[in-house]
Amino acid sequence: MRTKLSSATKEVIIGDGLPTVLIGERINPTGKKEMAETLKVGNLEIICKVALAQVQAGADILDVNINTFGVDEVTMLPQAVQAVMETVDVPLCLDCTNPKALEAALKVYKGKPLINSVSGEEQSLAKILPLVREYGTAVIGLTQDSDGIPGDSERRVAIAQKIVERAEAAGIPREDVIIDCLSLAVGADTRAGLVTIDSIQRIKAELGVNMTLGASNISFGLPDRNLLNSAFLAIIIAAGVTCPIVDTAKVRPIVLAADLVLGHDKRGRRYTEAYRQRQDAGSI
Amino acid sequence: MRTKLSSATKEVIIGDGLPTVLIGERINPTGKKEMAETLKVGNLEIICKVALAQVQAGADILDVNINTFGVDEVTMLPQAVQAVMETVDVPLCLDCTNPKALEAALKVYKGKPLINSVSGEEQSLAKILPLVREYGTAVIGLTQDSDGIPGDSERRVAIAQKIVERAEAAGIPREDVIIDCLSLAVGADTRAGLVTIDSIQRIKAELGVNMTLGASNISFGLPDRNLLNSAFLAIIIAAGVTCPIVDTAKVRPIVLAADLVLGHDKRGRRYTEAYRQRQDAGSI
Repeated sequence: MRTKLSSATKEVIIGDGLPTVLIGERINPTGKKEMAETLKVGNLEIICKVALAQVQAGADILDVNINTFGVDEVTMLPQAVQAVMETVDVPLCLDCTNPKALEAALKVYKGKPLINSVSGEEQSLAKILPLVREYGTAVIGLTQDSDGIPGDSERRVAIAQKIVERAEAAGIPREDVIIDCLSLAVGADTRAGLVTIDSIQRIKAELGVNMTLGASNISFGLPDRNLLNSAFLAIIIAAGVTCPIVDTAKVRPIVLAADLVLGHDKRGRRYTEAYRQRQDAGSI
Repeated sequence: MRTKLSSATKEVIIGDGLPTVLIGERINPTGKKEMAETLKVGNLEIICKVALAQVQAGADILDVNINTFGVDEVTMLPQAVQAVMETVDVPLCLDCTNPKALEAALKVYKGKPLINSVSGEEQSLAKILPLVREYGTAVIGLTQDSDGIPGDSERRVAIAQKIVERAEAAGIPREDVIIDCLSLAVGADTRAGLVTIDSIQRIKAELGVNMTLGASNISFGLPDRNLLNSAFLAIIIAAGVTCPIVDTAKVRPIVLAADLVLGHDKRGRRYTEAYRQRQDAGSI
């Protein structure tokens, strides 16, 4: 299955067997004090700087999240989207659950963006799917509902199924739904990774849709998080994740390595080119 | 399925859901000039030094290969095995295809070793399986035959099936056969990794046996081999490999990370202990 996203000038295709598409996660004020403070006063400089750095590090899509206390998303999300569009040329992922703010951002967006996210909750489906349909976007469907994130893969698959069915019933093609199976911290629950991997494999087999995942939750509370995230990324990409949400600069090398061993990188051109770039940059 | 191996004093259990067992690959003169030269004159000092270093780096089993031009394996393999047994306490994997040398080594070995290897070739089955049966060892079965290494997973699975059947017919329990699906270089063939991963998944589902793999072939001819090997190891462990043959010092961190996200490391005790050791050693 192929999901197409675009900016004004660039198209990105997400699909099985293609190179993994990286969604940069860094435009997000959670835990970033300076970004949060400047956002509150309507200053978008840091966001643009972070946008540029991620694209230079190889991000194919940027997630844009400005949700923090004291920021009015309805006003600021379109401004942030506008500023990022003027800074970089990659498609954007509008990370917001407020339908008014989403609609305001969709009105200024040029191209076909990704909306992050809808869940299996009725209220969320009712608010988000009409926007996806009206503006012809793609959407990330989270495998959680009013009971939270299920602890077993059966129920996560069932929620994914429900989201895909409801999207199709609303006139949204299946290829425009990207499922996020979610991962909890393996430090708190030894089975957390297994449940997520199993959900991904089942959804790939049963629904065939593209999948994303914020791969860094898995390592919460543990040391050397990048090592754990790297192992997990390689495994979930092999299992069926096609467009993870990541800190691009940190994980691009392992993702390119996974792509090469999984046959997503003909003759290893992307891998060897990235190796040369890291060499030139003096990072190896 | 559980495969038990032992030295005189130590038992190692290989199985699904257990921590990945690492077979150290460094006692092998191929490409190691000094080791080859000293072996030719019957000097086993380097081998013992390499044995100790690997166990200190976390190897659970050591592969012992002394095959190089000018070395008589029938004389030297038992001597090498004796010397390594006096140096470290882990079970050994006797890496040799000469049945006379194997038998001489089996006569001095204390415990239950692994023989590396038998293949699907009639001549190999006829020479090796009787030794496995007589000495009560376990054996690695390579998915290759007189036509070489098959380019597709169907034929690799068929060879694995044949080896398991022939072993069982010879009175060797299935749990004492460890299959090696083999990997070719992904730099030469983009599908090399995929075929190996698919073979592993099918053999796990159809035969349920333990599996090994020399994970470093995949990266032959490419830069930053350890990065590729790390991604591949995480993926093949998730697919079903339970006892890879590796350069322990280089890959133990990623293997422990994979074990943790795959639920093979309760509360992350092994992972966090290894992290502290690397910290104490100043390597992070």
